[in-house]
Amino acid sequence: MTFYKDAGVDIDAANNFVEQIKPIAKTTSRPGVVSGIGGFGSIFDLKAAGFKDPLLVSGTDGVGSKLKLAQQYGFHGQVGIDLVCMSANDILCHGARPLYFLDYYATGKLDAEHATQIIQGIATGCIRTGCALVGGETAELPTMYSYDEWELAGFCVGAVERKKLLPKDIVAGDIILGLSSSGMHANGFSIIQTPDAIPEEQMKKLLQPTTDYVRSCLSVMDDLKGLAHITGGGIVDNIPRIIPDGLMASINISWPLSELYSWIMNGGITHGQIIPQDEMLRI
Amino acid sequence: MTFYKDAGVDIDAANNFVEQIKPIAKTTSRPGVVSGIGGFGSIFDLKAAGFKDPLLVSGTDGVGSKLKLAQQYGFHGQVGIDLVCMSANDILCHGARPLYFLDYYATGKLDAEHATQIIQGIATGCIRTGCALVGGETAELPTMYSYDEWELAGFCVGAVERKKLLPKDIVAGDIILGLSSSGMHANGFSIIQTPDAIPEEQMKKLLQPTTDYVRSCLSVMDDLKGLAHITGGGIVDNIPRIIPDGLMASINISWPLSELYSWIMNGGITHGQIIPQDEMLRI
Repeated sequence: MTFYKDAGVDIDAANNFVEQIKPIAKTTSRPGVVSGIGGFGSIFDLKAAGFKDPLLVSGTDGVGSKLKLAQQYGFHGQVGIDLVCMSANDILCHGARPLYFLDYYATGKLDAEHATQIIQGIATGCIRTGCALVGGETAELPTMYSYDEWELAGFCVGAVERKKLLPKDIVAGDIILGLSSSGMHANGFSIIQTPDAIPEEQMKKLLQPTTDYVRSCLSVMDDLKGLAHITGGGIVDNIPRIIPDGLMASINISWPLSELYSWIMNGGITHGQIIPQDEMLRI
Repeated sequence: MTFYKDAGVDIDAANNFVEQIKPIAKTTSRPGVVSGIGGFGSIFDLKAAGFKDPLLVSGTDGVGSKLKLAQQYGFHGQVGIDLVCMSANDILCHGARPLYFLDYYATGKLDAEHATQIIQGIATGCIRTGCALVGGETAELPTMYSYDEWELAGFCVGAVERKKLLPKDIVAGDIILGLSSSGMHANGFSIIQTPDAIPEEQMKKLLQPTTDYVRSCLSVMDDLKGLAHITGGGIVDNIPRIIPDGLMASINISWPLSELYSWIMNGGITHGQIIPQDEMLRI
């Protein structure tokens, strides 16, 4: 006789894990969350969250190759923050307030300790961005991942009152403001081919969690006409996404490069090979 | 000098791919989709979709170990259908109509042909379930996946008028109806340890896409008190999720087992090892 457990899938362990993370998810609750009715889907009430005539804004993202490094260096918790902030920052660009979040977490073997750290990180990201962690999928896939490998994807839903949808009314002469990042956020990590050659202190800096721009931007949203989240494609590809036809962004790169970015540009993560400025701006 | 392309990440190819899949996504459009404004997030208008006082219902899922077999047998398109149906069937359990879908697709190397097949499958799933494919993340992660490996996760959002939220009013004496599946859907595939030992004809049957229950259930939703989507945990774990405290489901397993399931139970996918009925019901 064969049992599913023999194949490396332990349904009881998965059920226990779900029970274990419920209190963690609960710390992220917010007005609008409807709970306690079965739970095949996650239910949210926009009216209870204070919206009158909202449009929904949704986004999805992963953590990219940063995940691999986080696995290697045992930074299980931190990438959960990245996961939430990547999606939340995206929907923020439409003037939307992030409201709730669902995660997809797949691994070869469910390790309760690591898994809890990951969910705890996601919860931290949710609290920072004002999202409730309302659901997710935890998949134990022994034929797809090894014991210590895992993948994360995240999904964020927010809302904006119809009249406040961004971008809008961008005209010639408008000013572009830049907000600093905590570092590489969750883009460009594939360029690191030999992480072992990077000093651990520097690696820690590279793995800094993604900044959440939610609180700072929401507080001045009425004064903004549009926002661009600088992710894959960099400054070069992302700013034009909100610029109307016939206009262009004019940016004089005059700000001082951070110590971390100078080091990266001068080959810190590429075996001493310099990364050209154009390429830096795009990664 | 080092360029991102040298590390296996081709931003231009990724941008081209996004352009390529736009017409495919467009075939799934439906009332409520708001497009053409930047695109950091995906915008949806519940009012335009016909809702008056809706609650949102969201779900996420992957395709599990079925993905690995689909990769091996070149069934790239089909698993996209599974991906959508798994989440859409989940949110249907609350009486909700699936409205829109976002996918997360990660691979070691973006192969335009395979990738297009995958997105086409997702679009097919979206059309079947009435969802618009409004967005997604395509991640080229050479340090995490090999050339022919990929991962999929999906996120579905639907809505239900507040007064029609399910489950509700389930009482003693209510009748349980079962709807047949197309096969294993996207659960239990980890039990297949040596796929090569399975005849290709049978493998094709195992890889049948997940049934979408959306159209059949939505058409009679006003007559239903609750729905349970039989996924991981099977009949045993999923039906109790909608049964109120103090009641239990009484099911007499009298229906004839399909040819496929008889074969599975008798060891077809487990080297001749019989799978006990209790275990079958849970997988």
